[in-house]
Amino acid sequence: MTLSDQTSPANATPASSSAQKALLADLAATIGAGHVLTGADMSGHTGDWTGKYTAEPVAVIRPGSTQEVAECVKLAARHGVAIVPVSGRSGLVGGAMTQGGLMISVERLNRIREVRAGSRLAMVEAGVILSRLHEAAEDEGLYFPLWFGARGSAMIGGVLSTNAGGSNVLRYGSTRSLCLGLEVVLADGRVLNLMSELHKDNSGYDLKQMFIGAEGTLGIITAAVVKLVPKPRAYATATLAAASLGDALRLLNRLQAETGGLVEAFEYMPMVYMDRLEEVRPDIRQPFAPKQAVNILVELGATAPRDVTLAEDGSLPLTGLLEEVLAAMMEEGLVLDAEIASTEQQRRLMWERRELSAEVTFARKPLIDTDVSLPLEKIETFLAVMARRLPELDPGATSLCVAHLGDGNVHYTAFPTRDDPALYDAVVSAVEDEVAALHGSFSAEHGVGLSKRNSMARRKDPVALDVMRAVKAALDPEGRMNPGKVIPARG
Amino acid sequence: MTLSDQTSPANATPASSSAQKALLADLAATIGAGHVLTGADMSGHTGDWTGKYTAEPVAVIRPGSTQEVAECVKLAARHGVAIVPVSGRSGLVGGAMTQGGLMISVERLNRIREVRAGSRLAMVEAGVILSRLHEAAEDEGLYFPLWFGARGSAMIGGVLSTNAGGSNVLRYGSTRSLCLGLEVVLADGRVLNLMSELHKDNSGYDLKQMFIGAEGTLGIITAAVVKLVPKPRAYATATLAAASLGDALRLLNRLQAETGGLVEAFEYMPMVYMDRLEEVRPDIRQPFAPKQAVNILVELGATAPRDVTLAEDGSLPLTGLLEEVLAAMMEEGLVLDAEIASTEQQRRLMWERRELSAEVTFARKPLIDTDVSLPLEKIETFLAVMARRLPELDPGATSLCVAHLGDGNVHYTAFPTRDDPALYDAVVSAVEDEVAALHGSFSAEHGVGLSKRNSMARRKDPVALDVMRAVKAALDPEGRMNPGKVIPARG
Repeated sequence: MTLSDQTSPANATPASSSAQKALLADLAATIGAGHVLTGADMSGHTGDWTGKYTAEPVAVIRPGSTQEVAECVKLAARHGVAIVPVSGRSGLVGGAMTQGGLMISVERLNRIREVRAGSRLAMVEAGVILSRLHEAAEDEGLYFPLWFGARGSAMIGGVLSTNAGGSNVLRYGSTRSLCLGLEVVLADGRVLNLMSELHKDNSGYDLKQMFIGAEGTLGIITAAVVKLVPKPRAYATATLAAASLGDALRLLNRLQAETGGLVEAFEYMPMVYMDRLEEVRPDIRQPFAPKQAVNILVELGATAPRDVTLAEDGSLPLTGLLEEVLAAMMEEGLVLDAEIASTEQQRRLMWERRELSAEVTFARKPLIDTDVSLPLEKIETFLAVMARRLPELDPGATSLCVAHLGDGNVHYTAFPTRDDPALYDAVVSAVEDEVAALHGSFSAEHGVGLSKRNSMARRKDPVALDVMRAVKAALDPEGRMNPGKVIPARG
Repeated sequence: MTLSDQTSPANATPASSSAQKALLADLAATIGAGHVLTGADMSGHTGDWTGKYTAEPVAVIRPGSTQEVAECVKLAARHGVAIVPVSGRSGLVGGAMTQGGLMISVERLNRIREVRAGSRLAMVEAGVILSRLHEAAEDEGLYFPLWFGARGSAMIGGVLSTNAGGSNVLRYGSTRSLCLGLEVVLADGRVLNLMSELHKDNSGYDLKQMFIGAEGTLGIITAAVVKLVPKPRAYATATLAAASLGDALRLLNRLQAETGGLVEAFEYMPMVYMDRLEEVRPDIRQPFAPKQAVNILVELGATAPRDVTLAEDGSLPLTGLLEEVLAAMMEEGLVLDAEIASTEQQRRLMWERRELSAEVTFARKPLIDTDVSLPLEKIETFLAVMARRLPELDPGATSLCVAHLGDGNVHYTAFPTRDDPALYDAVVSAVEDEVAALHGSFSAEHGVGLSKRNSMARRKDPVALDVMRAVKAALDPEGRMNPGKVIPARG
């Protein structure tokens, strides 16, 4: 068994040719032939952003309502076909792959059913693109506080199914904690209606938590009730240099306490990242010359008039607060240097440096990208160990990383000197060995899908795996919901 | 089937006399005879705060470690005896009752294993009393933000098993969202180690969510990793009068936006509550004369120097901020009157009015107390309907309520003129009918236990109940973990 399992098929259930025809006819009768895509018509749905995976479904179907999703799931059950939900296809772990299964796209479930501003919530369907929800909330002076690069294509269904992370988890919590209610089509085609608007509800098990982050292996999320928060009316943004990651964490705690919890983002970019950014995008101005070892993008967000009402000289009080706190920390040596954005353009530049990480990372190949999380105070150790281990495995290899530092979420990427599956496995093993030794996780925010199934088998506590298998068997006894994903086969 | 099921036995498995002796001998050999309590020695463990329930366990055992809990669970399995975990016995729904089962007290698992201030977390065992954790966190300038009246006796195990609520959920989230990691002894005696310190971890299903709020029906929580937050260094507290609940909610949203989310608590006390408070505790000074219809206890908490550093005249900037916002809202008519605490003693008085709610409520009998939640904008409708419905059912009946308004969590209590089970059921049915019609929940923060099992059967979506039963059967196939609680029997 190798760790690079890009070619592993999802163990779907391909039907015989005549059985396939019967299935397709039934589906067409249920949702209309125009929404049952086969052959070349599927091409817009079968690839993903990584380019590593290509699905080969029996069909891609586009039901137009929860009830139609339920009918299609029942049909698939009757025909014994596996079901793979797909939404914005911005996932990075092959979670929407299939060989022979039926791909259910939620793209037509695209209504924002309601934005209830007074109650600070929205009812949205699974096919709503994240940035559309951002816009709808903003129209009411509110914000759905989940923010990451792929927001222009990721859909709510996938966002919830993968418990997607991003840059604002630090302030507003995980996707899981932003979800009040959920609507799910179960493996037998029944609709589980958990569309609660309640902030407290202890009437039995919190079932929605099972489906959030389950990557479609327990059911298909068709709609959700999500929390909204007051949209920050102003931001203060800075790029800082710190002497060490330990100092950066102390700095974060100080910033949180001294601003009263206004920190929206705290993103780490080490010198190796800034070097690569300069190579790939020399047009992007660097923050510090000479370059600094530990660069932090910090952003405060505020709604209070005392923070956001411009002073007579046109200055923003929130920026003044940030300057004041940083000045004190510079005096103490916690901050070595700082660049504070004084215009929206400067703020955008700071974010661009960070959000170019995908472009910067994927510009060099071959690469081995990871998405790990660590106890906050162990990140420095992890990076130090990898700086020693990687050259042992491949003397010419280079690496870079970026991190959502406040969440302990590190995206470490190695660039080996050759495209060698054995080397790939050795590097991933070294990363995961060290993460495990430091009580971290081999999957922080991207999920498991296909690509980390073997890591699940090797790294996850066997008792936890057993409990997951028991839950999976209880909810999907025929194993037809996104089979082969998340949970590795026994033994 | 009646709704008042105080007398329903938990369907445990009483053993024959000789089998019992064998079990007790095995337990004594495992954890020491001094920790296997029977007969009169159990009396300190078999009652609860409500006085409505008395457990009749085969024994109360006090294992001293997770491993001992696991061994005892294995022994119970071998002897075919049901297991009921018990911690601080401050629950209100009979969750720790049993007839013949083995009661496992976690009181000796009482170590705070570690408080890690830099990472803002604590590792605690299930028997740690909530207020002890508060003190340990405070020693580091931190706060475990779960706060309710019974904090001096409630233990972490019970707090997590019931997903307990309280007054700070509004700012810091539910118990569920404060938990990073969990250690659980499963029905077969295996230890599920989920003691993660991670803020992001998408390596498979988030299993800890299944055990939080499951009231011991899926396993026994023995330890947890919990988040800590910076301890507010100052509070600004006020009691307000608003014209209506709708105005109170607008006021809450304004306060959140204009203080930048500093609202720690937002508690509702209507005039009927203030009247009863005056009757029961005439020594407690009332905030307004004449009394007001809608009274709100609001508290801001702050850590930032600009909020907490006393001005030259000795005034607290945070109090100034609260005064300023309230003054603007008084001018607009959103606030009718306000009393702002200027000393810690005045603050304590404001909290005392609210925290006397248990004493005030239970001073009159018979009573029918409820713990429901509603969409925020529906609370007013609910109370209006009950004001009409209650006298229809019992012309002389009175009622009162208090509410964690920001969470939509209402504690409505009716005082019927007679102690009549049929009337009890009729009132509870009326409350739950109206709650259901308004898309609320019959159990907000107290849980289900025994007392709301029939409500689960009548009110919970049948598909959701089926899924819960499937999960229960998957994790506890012999039905020995706190049997008869939470999940009603089929049919």
